[in-house]
Amino acid sequence: MPARGDHDARRRDVSEAVWRVLAGRGFGGLTLRAVAAEMDASTGLLTHYFPNKRALVAYALDLAEERTANRPLREAPPGLASLRAALLDVLPLTPAASGMNRIWVSSWDVALADPELGERQRRRYENWRARLRPHAAAAVERGELPAGTGVDGTVAAAAAFAHGLVVHALFDPDAYPPARQTALLEAFLAALTTASPLPPAPGDEE
Amino acid sequence: MPARGDHDARRRDVSEAVWRVLAGRGFGGLTLRAVAAEMDASTGLLTHYFPNKRALVAYALDLAEERTANRPLREAPPGLASLRAALLDVLPLTPAASGMNRIWVSSWDVALADPELGERQRRRYENWRARLRPHAAAAVERGELPAGTGVDGTVAAAAAFAHGLVVHALFDPDAYPPARQTALLEAFLAALTTASPLPPAPGDEE
Repeated sequence: MPARGDHDARRRDVSEAVWRVLAGRGFGGLTLRAVAAEMDASTGLLTHYFPNKRALVAYALDLAEERTANRPLREAPPGLASLRAALLDVLPLTPAASGMNRIWVSSWDVALADPELGERQRRRYENWRARLRPHAAAAVERGELPAGTGVDGTVAAAAAFAHGLVVHALFDPDAYPPARQTALLEAFLAALTTASPLPPAPGDEE
Repeated sequence: MPARGDHDARRRDVSEAVWRVLAGRGFGGLTLRAVAAEMDASTGLLTHYFPNKRALVAYALDLAEERTANRPLREAPPGLASLRAALLDVLPLTPAASGMNRIWVSSWDVALADPELGERQRRRYENWRARLRPHAAAAVERGELPAGTGVDGTVAAAAAFAHGLVVHALFDPDAYPPARQTALLEAFLAALTTASPLPPAPGDEE
């Protein structure tokens, strides 16, 4: 039986290999064979960790969640500044953020095809919106967003805007350099601050 | 040699089978074997149409483009109403539109992993923004958007907002029923109409 240190080192090797395959080929290219080749190991060794493709995909999603959770986040004062910072944290403004986003966008294919993974993704985005919500609520309280602004609608709009911008920037980095992504986000937030408030939309829980 | 009519009928069968596989399993589940099974045919027959997986994926993208281009579109007066209609045409407001969007979102995985398919996708979105542009420009000319509004920035923001909303609605249809999607779009457009105009962003060609 290998020593504990060897075991941990091997697990780290597996994680790194899974990550490199994801970064280069996305979930569509994630196979036991590809990970084994990346590690210069046998597919047999990999089946010790992942009995099947689905286990490998679930592990890759765990890994993406872990790395997303552990990335450095911007600090900002409460209210609109925090909402802005949280949205900037998502945009592909650096190579690392582009790589992470590329992996998440790629994961949508497997998530849409598998009810369990789809539900997991649904909850991820629900949780993300829940984390944005206090920032939007504080922005209304502080008068940075017009009184009467629908907080859930603002959060849903901001989340949609940021994720759509991620997709467009990933496919066309030349048209969406970091300065333009940031300027588009600033303009989006500025429009919210000067907009006439609309009544909460259907489905909002204000 | 089969008669021309037989040939066309068989091509239609292939298209329908490819579409059903895409609709159910996305690009990740699109294989010659899956399409053959869907047609109750041999994989050998399929290789007559598609020498390899890549040819099948390219054909599936052609099919998605063709069906997207041929879907009925809303008619609207020029300006903001046309911009609104063009964005509504994209949202998953009906089962057919959800199915189409599910296929496009799924295609992003293969497109991000393949430079040629990625470039094709990049051009698709560039063309879409180019089609939205005259609507935004007309909205400024007609005074529906504030004078001085950056047209390219408005188009980029609207396209990002719509595609992000597509993704969130696909993963969480209960939280994003058609009425809420529409209300979020209306609020987004309303914010543009009342916003203080911002100078054109870097990268804009006004």
